[in-house]
Amino acid sequence: MKKSLMTLALLGAFAGVAHAETSVTIYGVLDAGFVKRNDQTLTIGKRDNNRLGFKGVEDLGGGLKALFQLETRFEPDTGTNESTTRPFWQGQSRVGLQGDFGTIRIGRGLTALQETATFYDPWHGLPSVTGFHADVMVAGLNSDPSSGAGNSGNRHSNAVFYNSPEVNGFSVFADMATKEANGSVAIVGRGTAAAPQYAANAEGSTNPFSIAGQYKSGQLNAFIAYERNAIETKATMLGASVQANADVKLMASYTKLDMEHTKAFDSTVKAWVIGAHVNYGPGKFLLGYGQKSPEGLAKTKQFSLGYEYSLSKRTYLYVDATNKKGDTPSRANDAVTQKARAAVDFRAYSLGILHNF
Amino acid sequence: MKKSLMTLALLGAFAGVAHAETSVTIYGVLDAGFVKRNDQTLTIGKRDNNRLGFKGVEDLGGGLKALFQLETRFEPDTGTNESTTRPFWQGQSRVGLQGDFGTIRIGRGLTALQETATFYDPWHGLPSVTGFHADVMVAGLNSDPSSGAGNSGNRHSNAVFYNSPEVNGFSVFADMATKEANGSVAIVGRGTAAAPQYAANAEGSTNPFSIAGQYKSGQLNAFIAYERNAIETKATMLGASVQANADVKLMASYTKLDMEHTKAFDSTVKAWVIGAHVNYGPGKFLLGYGQKSPEGLAKTKQFSLGYEYSLSKRTYLYVDATNKKGDTPSRANDAVTQKARAAVDFRAYSLGILHNF
Amino acid sequence: MKKSLMTLALLGAFAGVAHAETSVTIYGVLDAGFVKRNDQTLTIGKRDNNRLGFKGVEDLGGGLKALFQLETRFEPDTGTNESTTRPFWQGQSRVGLQGDFGTIRIGRGLTALQETATFYDPWHGLPSVTGFHADVMVAGLNSDPSSGAGNSGNRHSNAVFYNSPEVNGFSVFADMATKEANGSVAIVGRGTAAAPQYAANAEGSTNPFSIAGQYKSGQLNAFIAYERNAIETKATMLGASVQANADVKLMASYTKLDMEHTKAFDSTVKAWVIGAHVNYGPGKFLLGYGQKSPEGLAKTKQFSLGYEYSLSKRTYLYVDATNKKGDTPSRANDAVTQKARAAVDFRAYSLGILHNF
Repeated sequence: MKKSLMTLALLGAFAGVAHAETSVTIYGVLDAGFVKRNDQTLTIGKRDNNRLGFKGVEDLGGGLKALFQLETRFEPDTGTNESTTRPFWQGQSRVGLQGDFGTIRIGRGLTALQETATFYDPWHGLPSVTGFHADVMVAGLNSDPSSGAGNSGNRHSNAVFYNSPEVNGFSVFADMATKEANGSVAIVGRGTAAAPQYAANAEGSTNPFSIAGQYKSGQLNAFIAYERNAIETKATMLGASVQANADVKLMASYTKLDMEHTKAFDSTVKAWVIGAHVNYGPGKFLLGYGQKSPEGLAKTKQFSLGYEYSLSKRTYLYVDATNKKGDTPSRANDAVTQKARAAVDFRAYSLGILHNF
Repeated sequence: MKKSLMTLALLGAFAGVAHAETSVTIYGVLDAGFVKRNDQTLTIGKRDNNRLGFKGVEDLGGGLKALFQLETRFEPDTGTNESTTRPFWQGQSRVGLQGDFGTIRIGRGLTALQETATFYDPWHGLPSVTGFHADVMVAGLNSDPSSGAGNSGNRHSNAVFYNSPEVNGFSVFADMATKEANGSVAIVGRGTAAAPQYAANAEGSTNPFSIAGQYKSGQLNAFIAYERNAIETKATMLGASVQANADVKLMASYTKLDMEHTKAFDSTVKAWVIGAHVNYGPGKFLLGYGQKSPEGLAKTKQFSLGYEYSLSKRTYLYVDATNKKGDTPSRANDAVTQKARAAVDFRAYSLGILHNF
Repeated sequence: MKKSLMTLALLGAFAGVAHAETSVTIYGVLDAGFVKRNDQTLTIGKRDNNRLGFKGVEDLGGGLKALFQLETRFEPDTGTNESTTRPFWQGQSRVGLQGDFGTIRIGRGLTALQETATFYDPWHGLPSVTGFHADVMVAGLNSDPSSGAGNSGNRHSNAVFYNSPEVNGFSVFADMATKEANGSVAIVGRGTAAAPQYAANAEGSTNPFSIAGQYKSGQLNAFIAYERNAIETKATMLGASVQANADVKLMASYTKLDMEHTKAFDSTVKAWVIGAHVNYGPGKFLLGYGQKSPEGLAKTKQFSLGYEYSLSKRTYLYVDATNKKGDTPSRANDAVTQKARAAVDFRAYSLGILHNF
């Protein structure tokens, strides 16, 4: 008489469930702190994307590997999912293969342009109100207008992702998504309210794609990227960083957004950001300045200053300050509501702790 | 002076929180690929249920063990929970004991009939549009009409599950659920729209239960199962598989559904599926053909062909094709909407990667 | 030529993602059983909060540690999130530092009063209908009226938490939250339906805080706590437990609630609970009796008796019985609906298994 656990194990193997011998790596970030905007009450907020992830690599032999990664996002102050509305595995959900040819993955993740851009943002691409990435740096680009309201705007769902190996300092990242709809809201665009250019939950009129080329040589990193989203907004981006000396790193980026497909006039947005990291004491100063210039609208100007005090390689305290004037950072419907964006003029200060695990 | 972490640990023990010395096993499946239906745009989809699970076994001594299992499901293409509407721990959430008497667990999981049936489906019970299990194989049975729309139809919530040990090749699986309601929609049945046979969120008129007996002898596996759901639909199922030789496995199943309790006429559905697995090269071919015959309605006929190319014991590439004609696979309200089901006639092709971890 | 995984690893380090060398501790509780109320159908329910958590401690050197903890809650009978409506990380989401000064954490967690009270509840602070904590013991206190309906009422979101070290048996727990709103419903209070004292999603009129002092000396534990929530309800609580001999532990608590800020009259609720744990055989008996006396309303009286049969340090079977008369346990809007609460008079019995992992 065998024990029924053996039966269960057999059944598990049948159904492709078991194979528990793998080591899954759990990782994450928990970051919380005080945030005070001059026009709002004191809140508990975050600087980074709070996350919990599961990932693993399987050696298939012959230089081939299988890999997967799943990452959920959350708000540490209230315990909800990120923004309360985002997909549970908002960070990414991808599976794929890696070999001499590079890495190819299927699922959902940051677009090539958006992911590469984070390395050239003085605030590491963090969503902090002090940072530049989500609004000023990418000129308000919404990479994912096919997803419903409340989704993030810098990922592709339903996509294939390719990362090349690095050859002589060069590497290429690219992804392309299907046209399938994910509950998007209507986009009036060049249509009318009664007959919007893209109806609610419409399929894209083109396959969204994003491609970035990066070059590393000594102290220099540089990249160029191009992206076209499902409603044919086109983004071109350039950036570079240089480790000027042991303590100073400089970075700059320029982005041009072309919304001609959905806007009859004033269809261009230009943006640039410059920044620096300066090592000082047990941490570093962060400095950044940027402008976003939507055609026919007021410029957004932002200046930020911060300090990261390292307690270890994984944990630091931070203090940030920013001064932002101009447009609101919303990009939910870049082509539609550009005109409706309210003017903003605020200062914000934050103080918190970030812990990687 | 003691450190407050000790205080915390003590408090944790008080509240029954700590005991971190256990090894929890993390497991899962990430599977994504291209799916093309002849009548739809190309999408990124899945073949298997994408899942992340946590399970553990504690040895209690004297042959007794405590065990638990929690399993969440998700869509890899968009990062949402499975179908966006299902319970977070859709896969299962169960706790129980195991000993010479077998295994007894409490919580939520697949019914005995549904779980056993997966072992006799040529597509392993996968939810792929190419597979047979969810629609044709179980004759459209909805095991859980007491749960709200968007839930799955092959589990029992609020149930007790029993798995016998295997004795001389025989084993028995059984479960019984309470009558409690979980937000179900109204089921007109033999009532009227104004006075449905089961009101919205009504309790079951009987305790749902499911029982399956399985026999293994040499190369032969066979089972018989019977299930009655909360609205007294009855399902009877038979199946067998035989490992004909080292490379060929054959399987067949037959299901009869009796909805007399909620339908005055045309209350029977019959279905059968035959299939084969044929080892070839570094993988195997899958073949299946099945029919579902709802009384008074057109038959559903489905033919599928696939190949799994193994990269390792845990990872494979797959290519599938299916041709399906007849009824739609929806079973949300089996007793109500049987008549309203639209005719379907499509072909679908898929290509992807499945990784167990 | 480097492999692109290295590139990915570098990118990960850039973005502050990686650092996977840490050991994250996974822990949890899975508890399910039968619950029968004399006025309801038999259900599958729970005794404890079902949970899955992730936590870790990083040694920063010099006696300083960084720590984080994330804990989700769920219903084992249906697989949904706790109550289907609570934040995913309902249990807690906190990050902080620990040193000679004690522990300071930021995020969301139990208030000092609510957490300390659990150690003096004969049912360990469990949410079982048999237990006292959530209703009778804390006099119906809602610690978090700023959060939306469906949230729990014993936590502070957006808060800073401090736990002192234990010095000569004394320790102090305290937390303070911001005034920020989290989607609360309108609270009429001393206003009118048209002009409620607190509008929907109103900020608190004060910073919620909670403080508890605990003293341990030999067999005696005692505490005193004070809390004021965002709508200025004040709670004062006293409690003590004594290990009378090797087999008997006695406990008692008293709570006074003052809702004068939102109620013109009948603004006081008083409550007390006494209980005992008596070791017997491979487990222990639990006994408890308590009363809640809202001014101008009928008393709630509750008597409970239970037995925990230990299968190991981590797993036990339980049987509980309770008899409760008086007020309903709802506390969603303590100041508003106090009058509207329905009378209750029920007996409940439960039988189940609880497994810590």
